[in-house]
Amino acid sequence: MTRTKIAALHDHVGSTVRICGTVDAVRRQKQRLFAIVRDTTGVVQIVHERDSLPDVTHTLEHLTPGSAVAVVGRAVADARAKPLGVEVVVERFDSVSTAAVPLPINRHSTLDTRLDWRFLDLRDPRRQLIFRVQTTVEHAMRTFWTEHDFIEIHSPKLMASASESGSELFRVDYFDRSAYLAQSPQFYKQMAMAAGFDRVFEIGPVFRANPSFTSRHDTEFTSVDVEMSWIDSHQDVMALEEAWLRHVLAAVRDRHGDELRRLYDVEVVVPELPFPRISTADAYEILERRGHRVLRGGDLDPEGERQLSQHVKEQTGHEFVFVIDYPAPVRAFYHMRHHEGSPLTRSFDLLWKGVEVTTGAQREHRHEILVEQARDKGIDVDSIRYYLDFFRYGCPPHGGYGFGLSRMLMLLFGAGNVREVTYVYRGINRLTP
Amino acid sequence: MTRTKIAALHDHVGSTVRICGTVDAVRRQKQRLFAIVRDTTGVVQIVHERDSLPDVTHTLEHLTPGSAVAVVGRAVADARAKPLGVEVVVERFDSVSTAAVPLPINRHSTLDTRLDWRFLDLRDPRRQLIFRVQTTVEHAMRTFWTEHDFIEIHSPKLMASASESGSELFRVDYFDRSAYLAQSPQFYKQMAMAAGFDRVFEIGPVFRANPSFTSRHDTEFTSVDVEMSWIDSHQDVMALEEAWLRHVLAAVRDRHGDELRRLYDVEVVVPELPFPRISTADAYEILERRGHRVLRGGDLDPEGERQLSQHVKEQTGHEFVFVIDYPAPVRAFYHMRHHEGSPLTRSFDLLWKGVEVTTGAQREHRHEILVEQARDKGIDVDSIRYYLDFFRYGCPPHGGYGFGLSRMLMLLFGAGNVREVTYVYRGINRLTP
Repeated sequence: MTRTKIAALHDHVGSTVRICGTVDAVRRQKQRLFAIVRDTTGVVQIVHERDSLPDVTHTLEHLTPGSAVAVVGRAVADARAKPLGVEVVVERFDSVSTAAVPLPINRHSTLDTRLDWRFLDLRDPRRQLIFRVQTTVEHAMRTFWTEHDFIEIHSPKLMASASESGSELFRVDYFDRSAYLAQSPQFYKQMAMAAGFDRVFEIGPVFRANPSFTSRHDTEFTSVDVEMSWIDSHQDVMALEEAWLRHVLAAVRDRHGDELRRLYDVEVVVPELPFPRISTADAYEILERRGHRVLRGGDLDPEGERQLSQHVKEQTGHEFVFVIDYPAPVRAFYHMRHHEGSPLTRSFDLLWKGVEVTTGAQREHRHEILVEQARDKGIDVDSIRYYLDFFRYGCPPHGGYGFGLSRMLMLLFGAGNVREVTYVYRGINRLTP
Repeated sequence: MTRTKIAALHDHVGSTVRICGTVDAVRRQKQRLFAIVRDTTGVVQIVHERDSLPDVTHTLEHLTPGSAVAVVGRAVADARAKPLGVEVVVERFDSVSTAAVPLPINRHSTLDTRLDWRFLDLRDPRRQLIFRVQTTVEHAMRTFWTEHDFIEIHSPKLMASASESGSELFRVDYFDRSAYLAQSPQFYKQMAMAAGFDRVFEIGPVFRANPSFTSRHDTEFTSVDVEMSWIDSHQDVMALEEAWLRHVLAAVRDRHGDELRRLYDVEVVVPELPFPRISTADAYEILERRGHRVLRGGDLDPEGERQLSQHVKEQTGHEFVFVIDYPAPVRAFYHMRHHEGSPLTRSFDLLWKGVEVTTGAQREHRHEILVEQARDKGIDVDSIRYYLDFFRYGCPPHGGYGFGLSRMLMLLFGAGNVREVTYVYRGINRLTP
């Protein structure tokens, strides 16, 4: 018999339906037995008269919360049955997979215990919404890209040497030698530019042997990466990113706006274009005027980012701000300078609600200058020779950005911790489940 | 000035345009200089009269193949200019990034040399098509899934222990202990079923420390994974997969059918539904009748798979065949038996053009039976306790499949080697570029 999803029950009042889902709760009264059953679309009350169908009575007497059940019964209208106005009167009740008791977590469990039993933790419809929103976010991202002639790549995660800094690198036993896990697809998305791919994207895992315990850090996360050729400056990259984010947030609002309001009290704002842009020079000044101590010529600290976003929000009402033109010492060696000898780079960060979600830049595509900039940063150029070679045989001007998917979800859901929005979190002390 | 893509030049005849791309070739005649320039959409001839614009003459005299160039000029109709019927008369010619000479590969280079210089190798429009087709394939896959209520997951690639066999596992230094790279998202997609996600998919990297050198093997590849709940048997999984593949191949034919015919002499066949299904018992018989020696009760060898596909093609004209109901000894411990005590599993492989592209099954979701099946295979059940726990607190019946993206591309393009269709290949002796 075909399964009916719970949200569609009102179309089946008066008919016999089959409901498949998880038992949220069981109530036993003198004359009647009730099971509250949930599927991905909603929750419904199942009703059974004790003195009918002894098999069903027996099953419901022994039913435990969490069990996976398949119920055949008649959908009947009942105004008291919230929120559907429909309940199901049992005809057959199979406890297909009966849960052991008690469940090892409850709503008072700590985050760490919840993560130990992540599959039970994720049964909460509030948490499941995170991953349905993630699905919408990623599909909207990729739809935008494919409509704008981007090619999808899957860059290797096993590398012979570091892609960037060389610190926080995981070492792998690779047959009789060592390999390292990719910290970013940076070199390989630039390789696509040297290959004439014009525009590429990748959504995939990256790995950082970061020993810290903060709410924003993990050792493995999903990175969203874009690279595009024939740009005039980082402004072209920002123009692409802001249009893309507007498209993505519109999709989230259209598809999940009501649920986000109901379950999280969150209003999805589809941002206006263009996003505000503030140079680092202006950012230092704004922050100093607000009484926040800054290191001129340095990067912004998390509190500085929060305050700058707050300033922009107050001045323009905008949730996003591009901070642009960072000084060369705080940027990667492959960021292009404004012009030869300039202390500033053609770079940007994107802040959303006070948190950095993107780092981007135009890249230096001129081989000699790139080698020099690498040396200036103390990088062993021999170890990245294969990368530097990309720029010896004709490489168009290009730029791109990296975007943190879980940071976006954390901000969207107002979650305090990246662990909440990661399907299965990995940190210094967590390799299971 | 806005860039015009080469394929769109015929809409701009008589106007001044800006072309950005790579130099395929340079020809120098007494009176005129020519550059053949390619972008992702096509190729065009750039023409320059020697006695005009001395700057341009100088640039073209020193221009090298492979250089990235930006050309401003007038698009003029010329019937002799194949295939567009348009050429561009130079007004400004910038060799933005001049290629060193000679290029380190040419069309006589070996596969290994080509892989050393993969970014140059990928400039060939025939190879670039592989990745444009891959983009279409993946987007069609995900569009089908999102329209069928699937949730996208990103499962962890760092694990505390093996997911399946324990052999061919890469070990990682993980702070003061060891981690292992995921060989498949198997356990984590099943975890989503225990979490009530109903249907999930993932496209992501998996890692196998496979020491072999065959044309089909690599140490890192992109796995396509699906898992779905509330199935009655593996037949439901096959029904989903065949509808999905039909959708994907229709998208490839619609978008790239002409190019595939022109560049690869390949005809994309959109398969009819349902795909043929053959039990392993029948497969053994068919193969024996064809004179191929089989091990009854064993798996099919590659030659057996080729012959079985050939048989189906001859009998039905179909390129696909599901081989179903494999004997338990040759399947993973978590494949469900047909019924208690049955020697057969609710499993299938999908062969396309003679090669296995999918392994799938209904999974055993009953905790005690699963533990017993794991023990029977000699698996240390303590090391996978976290996985076995998924089945103790209510887990719906479910099944799924894994699909090899590069195998599909290899077959679609008639490529002899998985290295050709992988963006950056990784094997026992290859960690660069």
